Amino acid sequence: MRRTLPSVEQFVKGIRASDRVLLGQAITLVESAREEHQILAREIIAQLLPAIAVAAKPPTLGALRIAVTGAPGVGKSTFIEALGMYLVEQGKRPAVLAIDPSSAVSGGSILGDKTRMERLSASEQAFIRPSPSGDSLGGVARKTREAIVLVEAAGFDTVIVETVGVGQSEIAAQRMTDLFILLLLPGAGDELQGIKRGIVEMADLLVVNKSDGDRIQLANQARGHYMNAAHLFPIKPSGWQPRVLACSALENFGIDAIWTAVLEFQKHTLANGFFQENRHQQARYWLEDSLEAGLRSRFYKHPGVQAKLAEVEAEVLAGRMSPTDAAARVLGVLDWGR
Amino acid sequence: MRRTLPSVEQFVKGIRASDRVLLGQAITLVESAREEHQILAREIIAQLLPAIAVAAKPPTLGALRIAVTGAPGVGKSTFIEALGMYLVEQGKRPAVLAIDPSSAVSGGSILGDKTRMERLSASEQAFIRPSPSGDSLGGVARKTREAIVLVEAAGFDTVIVETVGVGQSEIAAQRMTDLFILLLLPGAGDELQGIKRGIVEMADLLVVNKSDGDRIQLANQARGHYMNAAHLFPIKPSGWQPRVLACSALENFGIDAIWTAVLEFQKHTLANGFFQENRHQQARYWLEDSLEAGLRSRFYKHPGVQAKLAEVEAEVLAGRMSPTDAAARVLGVLDWGR
Repeated sequence: MRRTLPSVEQFVKGIRASDRVLLGQAITLVESAREEHQILAREIIAQLLPAIAVAAKPPTLGALRIAVTGAPGVGKSTFIEALGMYLVEQGKRPAVLAIDPSSAVSGGSILGDKTRMERLSASEQAFIRPSPSGDSLGGVARKTREAIVLVEAAGFDTVIVETVGVGQSEIAAQRMTDLFILLLLPGAGDELQGIKRGIVEMADLLVVNKSDGDRIQLANQARGHYMNAAHLFPIKPSGWQPRVLACSALENFGIDAIWTAVLEFQKHTLANGFFQENRHQQARYWLEDSLEAGLRSRFYKHPGVQAKLAEVEAEVLAGRMSPTDAAARVLGVLDWGR
Repeated sequence: MRRTLPSVEQFVKGIRASDRVLLGQAITLVESAREEHQILAREIIAQLLPAIAVAAKPPTLGALRIAVTGAPGVGKSTFIEALGMYLVEQGKRPAVLAIDPSSAVSGGSILGDKTRMERLSASEQAFIRPSPSGDSLGGVARKTREAIVLVEAAGFDTVIVETVGVGQSEIAAQRMTDLFILLLLPGAGDELQGIKRGIVEMADLLVVNKSDGDRIQLANQARGHYMNAAHLFPIKPSGWQPRVLACSALENFGIDAIWTAVLEFQKHTLANGFFQENRHQQARYWLEDSLEAGLRSRFYKHPGVQAKLAEVEAEVLAGRMSPTDAAARVLGVLDWGR
């Protein structure tokens, strides 16, 4: 028993008309491991891209993509909900996606708990999607990157990519966004926050969250600490000097100043060409990433390769054949058609 | 003008007779980027492997492979020379190889300065080879791994692989050795020594070097510190509890105790099967590593792939084609002969 899927044409028309059900189904296709689903997803995206390319006109070049990260407990959901609601009030249409490779293991996922962003979830102008599951960060990231295309085609103009703040996921998120926001707790140093130094240096905006109640003094101290630190960071290719701000997502304080800084970053990088150059570099990166993932996948699925690999592996394990020699024999199975 | 290279037969006979000139030339072939050199190297190794496999009998299964690392300034060369000379006195034949991907960049290389291990260099029973240069850690590591086969075929029974102590090189070294020695300075904590926590936890033996003169008290403190820390490490798959020792390579103190611990580690892991299982896992890893490096290299060299890639890249950069779609088109150039 299979449900009949809508046609490519239905998907494309529906997504362009901002039909949330079809948008959700299309993202499910992107996330599916089944080959026919992947082919369908590819076709849908192929038909949507020209419209996005046309819409990506100056001055803003289409939707703005923002990475938001921070250690567990820093209040990411509350912050994203506050920022998202602020954007909705400004007439914007935010979409929230996530990269969390642990979600497949832990069962729980970022944004998995729909009640976490109750108000934003209920907004007609916003779209929230939990992290795809996957057996590797590469796979999870690739799916999120394609979901970005789909939500942009559906007219969402600000895409927020949430990650967990522990390392590799942040690098993946940076490779698909224009701007990187790192949330920090008042008071605690980097070590206590479980944030790697490299991630702090990736940030364009450092935001001390939970700057409310009796934490205001601590938040100010933290802000001063990070402002000093930010001056010591290596100069970024964007030419942008990272800013350190404070906010209380709970009390809805400081969100407007953060959004002003986001827009200044966008203006700065559009003016000096970094914005465009960064997107080009990202496109090259994802092309190579997709190519190599596809290459490995097709290679290991090839029946001749599988048979030869089993044969030489036994020889390698017995120490009678070198890995290099064995690899050359397996690669020789394919006709490289020179 | 090309020099005529010796034949495969001459290389194989010479290396088995421990001819150091031919051994050095064979390692140069392994390190060469030229395809005909690589084919020749593969053939030499293929003919040497069966003899190594036969020699790898119980109880020791052939040569013992040891990784030695530590931060710059910890005295790695002095330590390796002291250990190497001790082994020569015991009737052993040590070979010292290195993994230093920075050598291509910096011009200077670990072991590059031959005078650094003057006594060991002069010994007839020892062999020292600087780090190969290369444009990637993967390439450098692959070359060092093949050099191990060559030195073992030439009768060297203890292979020491030296690295710089800053991260990825240590992981590569661990993947080609049986035992991991981390050198530490008296007194300083991990942070000061520039050693990542993950590397400390990889160590089977932690050795506080420079335990001499007025540093003896500091060395004892450091030893106590690391002994406490070692008890908190996660239990290793080898079932071996890491040991913390002190030595002075300069005053030749403690080297014998280190060698005793090395032999106990070997006995322990041979008895519980970890030694063999670890070598099998390593062989599988290097097979996959060689396969994927070869796959990428052949793929990007393919003229049809190159042409298609240039064509789709322009579309991707213009935002008219998705990376996934573009990748599928490039992969479609190859006949996967299903």
